[in-house]
Amino acid sequence: MLTDDVPLTDHHCHGVVAGDLDLPHFEELLSEGPRGTFESSIGLAVRRWCAPVLDLPPHTEADDYLARRAELGWREVSARLLRAAGTTRWFLDTGFGSNDLADFAALADGEVGEVVRLEQVAEEVIAEIGMPATLFEHVEAALRERAGHAVGLKTVVAYRCGLDFPLVHTSPAAPEPRLTDPDMLGTLVGLGARLGAELGLPLQFHTGFGDTDLRLARADPLLLTDFLRSTADTGLTVVLLHCWPFHRNAAYLAHAYPHVLIDVGLAIPYVGHRSSAVLAETLELAPFRSLCYSSDGYGLPELHYLGAKLWRRGLGLLLDEWLAADAITVADAERLVAAVAHGNAQHHYPPLPHHRPTSGTHSG
Amino acid sequence: MLTDDVPLTDHHCHGVVAGDLDLPHFEELLSEGPRGTFESSIGLAVRRWCAPVLDLPPHTEADDYLARRAELGWREVSARLLRAAGTTRWFLDTGFGSNDLADFAALADGEVGEVVRLEQVAEEVIAEIGMPATLFEHVEAALRERAGHAVGLKTVVAYRCGLDFPLVHTSPAAPEPRLTDPDMLGTLVGLGARLGAELGLPLQFHTGFGDTDLRLARADPLLLTDFLRSTADTGLTVVLLHCWPFHRNAAYLAHAYPHVLIDVGLAIPYVGHRSSAVLAETLELAPFRSLCYSSDGYGLPELHYLGAKLWRRGLGLLLDEWLAADAITVADAERLVAAVAHGNAQHHYPPLPHHRPTSGTHSG
Amino acid sequence: MLTDDVPLTDHHCHGVVAGDLDLPHFEELLSEGPRGTFESSIGLAVRRWCAPVLDLPPHTEADDYLARRAELGWREVSARLLRAAGTTRWFLDTGFGSNDLADFAALADGEVGEVVRLEQVAEEVIAEIGMPATLFEHVEAALRERAGHAVGLKTVVAYRCGLDFPLVHTSPAAPEPRLTDPDMLGTLVGLGARLGAELGLPLQFHTGFGDTDLRLARADPLLLTDFLRSTADTGLTVVLLHCWPFHRNAAYLAHAYPHVLIDVGLAIPYVGHRSSAVLAETLELAPFRSLCYSSDGYGLPELHYLGAKLWRRGLGLLLDEWLAADAITVADAERLVAAVAHGNAQHHYPPLPHHRPTSGTHSG
Repeated sequence: MLTDDVPLTDHHCHGVVAGDLDLPHFEELLSEGPRGTFESSIGLAVRRWCAPVLDLPPHTEADDYLARRAELGWREVSARLLRAAGTTRWFLDTGFGSNDLADFAALADGEVGEVVRLEQVAEEVIAEIGMPATLFEHVEAALRERAGHAVGLKTVVAYRCGLDFPLVHTSPAAPEPRLTDPDMLGTLVGLGARLGAELGLPLQFHTGFGDTDLRLARADPLLLTDFLRSTADTGLTVVLLHCWPFHRNAAYLAHAYPHVLIDVGLAIPYVGHRSSAVLAETLELAPFRSLCYSSDGYGLPELHYLGAKLWRRGLGLLLDEWLAADAITVADAERLVAAVAHGNAQHHYPPLPHHRPTSGTHSG
Repeated sequence: MLTDDVPLTDHHCHGVVAGDLDLPHFEELLSEGPRGTFESSIGLAVRRWCAPVLDLPPHTEADDYLARRAELGWREVSARLLRAAGTTRWFLDTGFGSNDLADFAALADGEVGEVVRLEQVAEEVIAEIGMPATLFEHVEAALRERAGHAVGLKTVVAYRCGLDFPLVHTSPAAPEPRLTDPDMLGTLVGLGARLGAELGLPLQFHTGFGDTDLRLARADPLLLTDFLRSTADTGLTVVLLHCWPFHRNAAYLAHAYPHVLIDVGLAIPYVGHRSSAVLAETLELAPFRSLCYSSDGYGLPELHYLGAKLWRRGLGLLLDEWLAADAITVADAERLVAAVAHGNAQHHYPPLPHHRPTSGTHSG
Repeated sequence: MLTDDVPLTDHHCHGVVAGDLDLPHFEELLSEGPRGTFESSIGLAVRRWCAPVLDLPPHTEADDYLARRAELGWREVSARLLRAAGTTRWFLDTGFGSNDLADFAALADGEVGEVVRLEQVAEEVIAEIGMPATLFEHVEAALRERAGHAVGLKTVVAYRCGLDFPLVHTSPAAPEPRLTDPDMLGTLVGLGARLGAELGLPLQFHTGFGDTDLRLARADPLLLTDFLRSTADTGLTVVLLHCWPFHRNAAYLAHAYPHVLIDVGLAIPYVGHRSSAVLAETLELAPFRSLCYSSDGYGLPELHYLGAKLWRRGLGLLLDEWLAADAITVADAERLVAAVAHGNAQHHYPPLPHHRPTSGTHSG
């Protein structure tokens, strides 16, 4: 398969849980909801594809899989799965969960870059200084400092007030521990867009499905249309993450707005055997220059591995079909694979500043 | 095919027309709109799959099909088609159309349970007593009585004010023959949710496509997000019916909210040869524990039969493909089939109270 | 393939650029956005399918393709591609771009009909007489004159205020060079609907994806539900153009409302190899009587040709699969092909009034 050996840049993922997991906790992390289950497409995929990485036969039952996982220990399991992904560069969103970048780099034996989450920085500043009239000056200063060693910015405004946030600049309202005020969020995203354009850092948006903290209808990337128009000529690169089940909408935006990158990150491990179909729908309209790879792996290194494995498999099957139908040449297919695997990310993200496997620890 | 012989629980359907039909009336019932046609996916499916049940060759022309139907008579036709479905338990929504449960049980040679429609009960109460301040006490009493021999509740609030009904408790407004006031409907659905949780009766929602009385955009199950959050820990089981073309949205809700069941009922007979594709999209994210089978058969026993036949065929083809791709084992596939065919319904619905084939008549 | 030789009626397209194009301008026209690219599904399709029409091998590189194009000259290129489409009747929307119908007819060696754009006529009238209280009387007069030699009407209200325009009759507001006032647009579309019903001219709506002037979420055909209800019994034929990514929503509307025709025009050339999948999704619910063919070709004759080629190929592959699965007979499949290729258009549009290849020039 054309996609077997191409090195991947995982431009959006998270750290792994530093500890062993029993079945209920493992299944919980196998879902965006509170009660995941092996009885799902992603559960089948874990048993089919991850089991062999742990020296088990394909389709090993869940209990046996968890037993072997405990036997090897989380460090060995994580190292095996992360390295089996064939990913050479990992961009970690440090806004949520454990974030020891150096340790992740050591486990994965790869380069690691940091993606800074706007809301997390703003909430840290608010926790420290409250909400003075100068709040956003302080937020900007904090963001600039964090951006100095980052490869990208990220916003989860989709979770807070939806992607149809106002395009306004506001002064602070009453303090809140968790930023949910639409005007404040609009200002924050606007600040992120300005800094991203100035510093050459792509701004990632969570779009599409996620956990129960989300109203999915408010996470349709089409709600970003006004924002995309307003940033089209500023030099900013906007990245739409995940997108499912709105991946065709996202593909349209990437088609219409050249400063838009998209991925179907999170969806790939979750949809299992269907990864090929989801990629096919995305490539209907998305220019090949606009699609990136990511796993959105979080907590379980299985997710990082499945993201890579099912992306390779899904895109590989798709291109096999296109080749068999004489819809593309091998040379063009190879070019497409390289662009999506790492080329497009390389083109839009800055070079990795540090966090080589041997560098010091950073906790975001 | 793995799905050929599994017994089905049809957890949402309706009665059949007790009489013979000419071509225009048959085609009318072959559509959610006012003018159905054999020249459609469902029309092809009737000719392909139902004709042999009536001893005709596959693909028999519409006129010949109707002639044979008349020759056999509606009772014989209904008995043949209902029995050919391989469905052993039928849950009939008695809120609309003819509802002789005992006769249906006799025709189908199966067990029959009743699903009580909230709006129908409320409108009966209003017709009788008007709209006193105590209206909802009377509605509750009527619902409790009906619920005593039912297996589930159902709401068509999607048709009345949309699935984004208010989560409020209100006092009655001015009387109306047909309940469309959003506050009243919100109160009614809230009452249904409370009774469903208390009595262990799943609450079914019409979602997705239906007849021209519907604004399809108001029937997107994502509009239920707040309702699902508010009922997540109450013990209620919420059932999203039909869902097409929002079946991926529904699958996300089933993934995120463990108290949600879904089906693609009505869509399966309508999309004909495409049933496999629709099921594949649904299973991308829906846990296998959450998917149920239904036909939503209404009027024509052809719909009950095609629901079963095309579900068997669609899921069978899908699993054949997964097996061929080594994405699932035979044992896991069999478990999935049994869960969707009847296991999940059995787990969430109460046992059938009565309405055995030989029991008395109930008219809802 | 069953679809190879059926003559097509292209019921919605535009003229071609009368001049040679360099790579940037060609790529610009290969996209609805400002920066198209050969590195996309449509780019692959141009190289695969159009190159042989210009005597080049399949998959010719973009530079070589453009060189050959320049060598042959735009007239020869256009004549070859338009004639290779196998389209015998072309309905041109003259509301945008170059519109020499007679020259197009000569190039294409086919019959040409005109589709009149409501907004263009209204804006011409406003430019001439401003906004007197009698404005819509003048607009109606102008529309009647234009309608006299037209085969259909078209509205781009999706671009102006969205498909949820108000169903009102209003008096003129302040003048504006480009009609964007929702009340005015609602009145204009209402006028178009009345004239269309009276004169037997189908009213086409742009729906679904388009250029960056569009908010895609406002172009969901489901937003037309009230309009469809209000026109269901007036004799008007409503045509939903393009529809992607809302083609399943459009299929539902065609299923529910017998006066609705749909196509997936623009989407077919853009999605390239995926045309079969998009048609399959559309045919899930759309009655075969409701689907029409169009290319929405604009600027590049490659789009007119690819519209036809990929429609033939996509529907052909789909029907091959249905035939292999015994889901349809050859006779039924041929009937379906003829209906979609030209029969449905022939049934709903008036006969071509003039604009035979040898007729005089009309500039719209």
